[in-house]
Amino acid sequence: MADAESAGLQGIAELDLTRAARRGYPEAVYCAGKSPDQVAAIARALRDAHAAGATTGSALFTRASADHAEAVLRVLPDAVHDEVGRILAWPPRAPEPTGGLVAVLCAGTSDLPVAREAVVTLTYLGRPTELVVDIGVAGLHRVLARQDLIDSARAIVVVAGMDGALASVVAGLAHAPVVAVPTSVGYGAAFEGLAPLLSMLNACAPGVGVVNIDNGYGGGHLAAQIAAPTS
Amino acid sequence: MADAESAGLQGIAELDLTRAARRGYPEAVYCAGKSPDQVAAIARALRDAHAAGATTGSALFTRASADHAEAVLRVLPDAVHDEVGRILAWPPRAPEPTGGLVAVLCAGTSDLPVAREAVVTLTYLGRPTELVVDIGVAGLHRVLARQDLIDSARAIVVVAGMDGALASVVAGLAHAPVVAVPTSVGYGAAFEGLAPLLSMLNACAPGVGVVNIDNGYGGGHLAAQIAAPTS
Amino acid sequence: MADAESAGLQGIAELDLTRAARRGYPEAVYCAGKSPDQVAAIARALRDAHAAGATTGSALFTRASADHAEAVLRVLPDAVHDEVGRILAWPPRAPEPTGGLVAVLCAGTSDLPVAREAVVTLTYLGRPTELVVDIGVAGLHRVLARQDLIDSARAIVVVAGMDGALASVVAGLAHAPVVAVPTSVGYGAAFEGLAPLLSMLNACAPGVGVVNIDNGYGGGHLAAQIAAPTS
Amino acid sequence: MADAESAGLQGIAELDLTRAARRGYPEAVYCAGKSPDQVAAIARALRDAHAAGATTGSALFTRASADHAEAVLRVLPDAVHDEVGRILAWPPRAPEPTGGLVAVLCAGTSDLPVAREAVVTLTYLGRPTELVVDIGVAGLHRVLARQDLIDSARAIVVVAGMDGALASVVAGLAHAPVVAVPTSVGYGAAFEGLAPLLSMLNACAPGVGVVNIDNGYGGGHLAAQIAAPTS
Amino acid sequence: MADAESAGLQGIAELDLTRAARRGYPEAVYCAGKSPDQVAAIARALRDAHAAGATTGSALFTRASADHAEAVLRVLPDAVHDEVGRILAWPPRAPEPTGGLVAVLCAGTSDLPVAREAVVTLTYLGRPTELVVDIGVAGLHRVLARQDLIDSARAIVVVAGMDGALASVVAGLAHAPVVAVPTSVGYGAAFEGLAPLLSMLNACAPGVGVVNIDNGYGGGHLAAQIAAPTS
Amino acid sequence: MADAESAGLQGIAELDLTRAARRGYPEAVYCAGKSPDQVAAIARALRDAHAAGATTGSALFTRASADHAEAVLRVLPDAVHDEVGRILAWPPRAPEPTGGLVAVLCAGTSDLPVAREAVVTLTYLGRPTELVVDIGVAGLHRVLARQDLIDSARAIVVVAGMDGALASVVAGLAHAPVVAVPTSVGYGAAFEGLAPLLSMLNACAPGVGVVNIDNGYGGGHLAAQIAAPTS
Amino acid sequence: MADAESAGLQGIAELDLTRAARRGYPEAVYCAGKSPDQVAAIARALRDAHAAGATTGSALFTRASADHAEAVLRVLPDAVHDEVGRILAWPPRAPEPTGGLVAVLCAGTSDLPVAREAVVTLTYLGRPTELVVDIGVAGLHRVLARQDLIDSARAIVVVAGMDGALASVVAGLAHAPVVAVPTSVGYGAAFEGLAPLLSMLNACAPGVGVVNIDNGYGGGHLAAQIAAPTS
Amino acid sequence: MADAESAGLQGIAELDLTRAARRGYPEAVYCAGKSPDQVAAIARALRDAHAAGATTGSALFTRASADHAEAVLRVLPDAVHDEVGRILAWPPRAPEPTGGLVAVLCAGTSDLPVAREAVVTLTYLGRPTELVVDIGVAGLHRVLARQDLIDSARAIVVVAGMDGALASVVAGLAHAPVVAVPTSVGYGAAFEGLAPLLSMLNACAPGVGVVNIDNGYGGGHLAAQIAAPTS
Repeated sequence: MADAESAGLQGIAELDLTRAARRGYPEAVYCAGKSPDQVAAIARALRDAHAAGATTGSALFTRASADHAEAVLRVLPDAVHDEVGRILAWPPRAPEPTGGLVAVLCAGTSDLPVAREAVVTLTYLGRPTELVVDIGVAGLHRVLARQDLIDSARAIVVVAGMDGALASVVAGLAHAPVVAVPTSVGYGAAFEGLAPLLSMLNACAPGVGVVNIDNGYGGGHLAAQIAAPTS
Repeated sequence: MADAESAGLQGIAELDLTRAARRGYPEAVYCAGKSPDQVAAIARALRDAHAAGATTGSALFTRASADHAEAVLRVLPDAVHDEVGRILAWPPRAPEPTGGLVAVLCAGTSDLPVAREAVVTLTYLGRPTELVVDIGVAGLHRVLARQDLIDSARAIVVVAGMDGALASVVAGLAHAPVVAVPTSVGYGAAFEGLAPLLSMLNACAPGVGVVNIDNGYGGGHLAAQIAAPTS
Repeated sequence: MADAESAGLQGIAELDLTRAARRGYPEAVYCAGKSPDQVAAIARALRDAHAAGATTGSALFTRASADHAEAVLRVLPDAVHDEVGRILAWPPRAPEPTGGLVAVLCAGTSDLPVAREAVVTLTYLGRPTELVVDIGVAGLHRVLARQDLIDSARAIVVVAGMDGALASVVAGLAHAPVVAVPTSVGYGAAFEGLAPLLSMLNACAPGVGVVNIDNGYGGGHLAAQIAAPTS
Repeated sequence: MADAESAGLQGIAELDLTRAARRGYPEAVYCAGKSPDQVAAIARALRDAHAAGATTGSALFTRASADHAEAVLRVLPDAVHDEVGRILAWPPRAPEPTGGLVAVLCAGTSDLPVAREAVVTLTYLGRPTELVVDIGVAGLHRVLARQDLIDSARAIVVVAGMDGALASVVAGLAHAPVVAVPTSVGYGAAFEGLAPLLSMLNACAPGVGVVNIDNGYGGGHLAAQIAAPTS
Repeated sequence: MADAESAGLQGIAELDLTRAARRGYPEAVYCAGKSPDQVAAIARALRDAHAAGATTGSALFTRASADHAEAVLRVLPDAVHDEVGRILAWPPRAPEPTGGLVAVLCAGTSDLPVAREAVVTLTYLGRPTELVVDIGVAGLHRVLARQDLIDSARAIVVVAGMDGALASVVAGLAHAPVVAVPTSVGYGAAFEGLAPLLSMLNACAPGVGVVNIDNGYGGGHLAAQIAAPTS
Repeated sequence: MADAESAGLQGIAELDLTRAARRGYPEAVYCAGKSPDQVAAIARALRDAHAAGATTGSALFTRASADHAEAVLRVLPDAVHDEVGRILAWPPRAPEPTGGLVAVLCAGTSDLPVAREAVVTLTYLGRPTELVVDIGVAGLHRVLARQDLIDSARAIVVVAGMDGALASVVAGLAHAPVVAVPTSVGYGAAFEGLAPLLSMLNACAPGVGVVNIDNGYGGGHLAAQIAAPTS
Repeated sequence: MADAESAGLQGIAELDLTRAARRGYPEAVYCAGKSPDQVAAIARALRDAHAAGATTGSALFTRASADHAEAVLRVLPDAVHDEVGRILAWPPRAPEPTGGLVAVLCAGTSDLPVAREAVVTLTYLGRPTELVVDIGVAGLHRVLARQDLIDSARAIVVVAGMDGALASVVAGLAHAPVVAVPTSVGYGAAFEGLAPLLSMLNACAPGVGVVNIDNGYGGGHLAAQIAAPTS
Repeated sequence: MADAESAGLQGIAELDLTRAARRGYPEAVYCAGKSPDQVAAIARALRDAHAAGATTGSALFTRASADHAEAVLRVLPDAVHDEVGRILAWPPRAPEPTGGLVAVLCAGTSDLPVAREAVVTLTYLGRPTELVVDIGVAGLHRVLARQDLIDSARAIVVVAGMDGALASVVAGLAHAPVVAVPTSVGYGAAFEGLAPLLSMLNACAPGVGVVNIDNGYGGGHLAAQIAAPTS
């Protein structure tokens, strides 16, 4: 049947061009489950809409496999591509940071792809961001050594798999709200992220809001909203 | 063995008197699973700590059954008691509201106990709050009629059981972050709140942070932090 | 042991040739879990039964991988093949549409394979069908813009992953029954479609019947029965 | 705080008075999780709206405990009350039956409360209905003896717990769509209705739409829509 | 470290040579999770034990991938290999059938690998066996047409995925016990066999014993014991 | 609405009077979920059918609460009532034992109600039965001391909660098939019988058929069929 | 049927009198699921066995409701009864403490019943024990203040519900092994202890062994074995 | 973005160099979810830290795929690599064994990778260790033949999939604590290790501490702590 590449977006997708106006944040394209051709077609439509002045801000392409990324870069060669975070941004220039500082605390190296997805999202949504890696509760001194960062943040993103305990520990030390992102990292009884998800939902310290497993984009987006400049 | 009533807090609990200083918010006592005698002992300790100037702000007693409430009121007769929300506050005077407005949107009447727990929490943590009840997505016009409130809020608490769809719908209409509180309301396949919990974690609109099932206190606390005045 | 290709259907499968008479709808062959050789053998038996006048209507081959499709097309070269929907139909001519209109609403591009499987099924079961893609509740205006289609349909198929909230929202706007097809699209806590499945089963608006995850064929079949012409 | 009885619906609920116009079916009040006082307040509001001509058709009160029923009957003494089905209807006069026949097939006596809830719902939504009880697949002859009823129905509601196999068996014998209502009846590994729910979602015969566990109201409502007279 | 091929069974496995004497049935080697080298080493040890007269009866190699099969056939070139059932037997000569007839009823073609594993197991444990394929309850006439076989069997193995309803239906028609083998065949909400597993455990007709998902070997073994000749 | 007591079985239940002829075993009435009045009505119908010679053998009333039992005994005063097993039988005379011996092995005292339900069922289905209590694998010598009983049984019923390990251990020692009945006995992570259910389904020794959690009736019925006299 | 009180242990239970010799630890009677009469019968048998010198050490009665406790105390009036821990011990004299110190760390007051069950078990199995209550990670300073106790323990029992994060945090600070006891304390998404159970199994610090939910006895027993004096 | 190979550990990981001092055991690197480049960078940092005298003892690299192993060996060519156990150790010289004997009992050959991971861990943490393979409860004599080993061990690691029954059986025979490691070996209803996990948590013999599914490293570490020499 009709080839996505030549057919434009007819029957594939519909851009939500009023979103930036309606919600204050630009569009993101979730690549998983889409073919590279479909993603390319969306990239073209975004490029055209941008050229026509119908949208503002940089769009993000999340969960982009190597094939997805190649398809985007073919259409938008100047897009920024973070391979670890599997995310692209276009137009490539991020806005000037405004609002409060967002700290992104990443429990272990295996959680890094999710943390980097959050960092890129925060950057393109316009927040000043600081990333700390390998700060799991197994070595509590590493958390305690960051009390200053915790105190200065307007929002904190905690990215952790396994027991997800970092969310509770950080929330207990912080004034700022914690956005918890469980990851699918861990042995079998982590059940693909269920263990840290439940742990974070049950954080014994209040002040933790949980997003979907491995959803660094969602965690970054929520933190960007929390730390947005107040008018 | 030793009677809690006469033994003070020895072997029962330890107050976290530095919490207000450390985190900026006062203590809350989770009554479920504690005996009324234990709750009364904690109430006495709080009263004494307050008299000694060792703590500030009003403490909350959450998930208080009728027996728990009676035990608290015996010790602290001037405590405020919201029966629907199963929550007490003492000292009874709430702080002057500061920070941004928090809208609490309650999908159905059966979700009201959880929504009221959130409202009382927000009130005693010092935020201006507005509650709307019976605003489920089955009658979408009821949601759309509140666009003004959605636009003016600094944080939005959505309380919903069943399909939990209100969180997605509201997030898609809002600049502000949404704190989603799933409830255990619904037929069998809601599995005591699992259905709205998963639905909210999978909200197709970004900007939703989820707390525990029926945890109105946690939802209110997180929203209060988000809407806190920025220094 | 015996080769399926040469052995006919002995020990592999048994056609249900009375099904069209008994139920009013023709046979469908579920390819997943069958070898291409087995599918080819079934295709040959269908061709022979058709030649012998033992069956009427077009058979569908669902969940057909590229290998399955190639095996079918080797036997039935004029079969219609929808690659996105992973489905083939033979004989290729669809019946004239009768009965009420069926609207197929597809929440996102990643849900498209399931939606197209429903559309092809509806077409070959003889219903007039209209497909709308990318109509998720995150941009509610896209749903509201289709109120006319919703009002004119005799049955509505909603295909959605993630929070599955589209089913509730549409049911709340419609006279017609909604057939909800959850998909396995989404981040980890979608648990391969469990989240939208539960959400749809708990739709706060009545009038939603749910079929299996990713089962576009089943959703299309049920909607075709609902919208069948009444005698 | 404010007493529901005297406060009207302020802060408790909001009637969806446009629902009959918007969707074609009147309001239903889900009593579970509401206090009897809250239900009484809603009953009063419905009575007043009816007196003011603001609504048409009979409202249903579902999942009504004995206390809920007493509260409704205090306000609306002429309401019809089906104790087995835990459901009330007011005004008590059901509409003249129109549209196609709906057969309600109830697998066992223990499933009867759910089946009766469906029958009362169908009656007040205006469909001709026939109930058959104790027709489980363990005695297949009991199902086969009802082939005539199955053939004459425009929609079939199957109510079954345990293995839920009745839905598949009936769907395989019917032209009409099957609305499957799993019940929480059965030994431990039924897991409160999970077993028949999954079984019905996986029905090997197409044409089955599933609603929530024990949701006789939902099953009846969907079947009423399917069997509605076509204009 | 030590190479399995040259090390015999030291540190890899220990044959249960007394099993035939203790339980009356020979050894089976579960290949999944073992390397082909490990399986070959076990095959060699069996060959040696057989040569030494230390064991009797044919051993089975179950869940054998192509690599496992090749490894076995390298050591035991005259082993019988059923590719569909992924099972090998050696020595190749099956015992003379004794005891009662075992009927193996296979719901669909996709369940055939599991059914064939059961048939081969039954054959090598010495029972007369009859296999019927594609006898799902969606076409009930296909089941009813086999009442004679059902009546003449001493044990019945039912192999089914999806709704697993065949187990209930057959048990309701039979004197003989039913051994139910759920399979992982089906759409998403089958959850890899959970749906038919629960359905079979909840069979509304008594007389069903359930074994593990896709465990044709286990189903065949249990049926062979049930239908064993009584002394 | 109509009172069950006076209405006979109209709209409540339908006796399966051909079951003894069709399957060889008499009717059983599952009381859970039925009102005492409904159970009494069924008891009366059975009494009348028996008086009319329309049925043979003793019927069983399973899962009978004290209220259910009282209702049955009011109608059938000579029924036998095993309070521990929550089961009644009428007419009270059990058949002469025929077929092979069935051993019922009960892991712990807390599992006794389920084991006794199995014993009564076996007795009224006509098998010689021997019960052993408190034979858990924590004290393996207690199992090994029963090797003679294990060797002489034609079928073995294992009733166990917690780890359900007794099924594997006994199957590894037995020629005869094992019918495993998991119970809901145990600490939290037994999840109401899920732990022993899964353990028994995964028994590393073949020859185990599993029935529903706490289903002593089902376990006894299956064992009675296995140990039935062969013609 | 036979009355437990007069029948001794015939058909109810069998004491494992060799357990102390075989394993080194005395018998425990799990009361849940047993009737008070059955528990009394076991108490009498223990008393008789003790009088006959057939057993040594104090037996424990765990999970004893008020009725169970009364039944035990009627037979063994000098038994020690810890009401909070729902546990009794007889003979009442505990052995002299030997082996290493066991620290029992209890996250919150609601976890106290489980912690006290562990303490009593440890005491009667002969270990020196120290209990600390209300040491959750929400106030990390409370954990850090106990570093000395953590350093001096030979085994540490951590009792926690909700996020169960205390196990990871303590393990990361300790030389000694941690025995983690999840409790069923918490809001809905704790799912009766599943959340802390999974969290503890996924502890990012090695050195944590997990026992069943709410199983203070099991946790105490395991810790007593770990801290046993080495010969 | 920055290449891990050249960037050192900046933004990737942070070594916990005080762990040996703090906890008494050296660092382990969990390779799953890390890229080979990241693992190589960590290996280099460890080499440098060792050269600088900043750490002692051998580090372990666990869950190392072939690519991970190659990356480690490129940096640390003299590392010991156990391919079956997917684990490497460096520096290669293990400490002299001290403390009590640890027995590692492996139920089946398919569990061997997990058991070997435990053995290597124990060896490098300094415990004398003895491994027994293929000792499942299906052949109980194989367990009983090892009573001497069970009696002489200071800790016992049980590695088992499927029913996990070996943990209960061994605990019932042992003075020493049992560390239970469930594996993901087994048919479908093992649900990737859930079945043995639950079985082990519900062991009817006390004295079992459970670690994560397939976590041989965790099991070995905990056993090494239990069997550590007491000062």
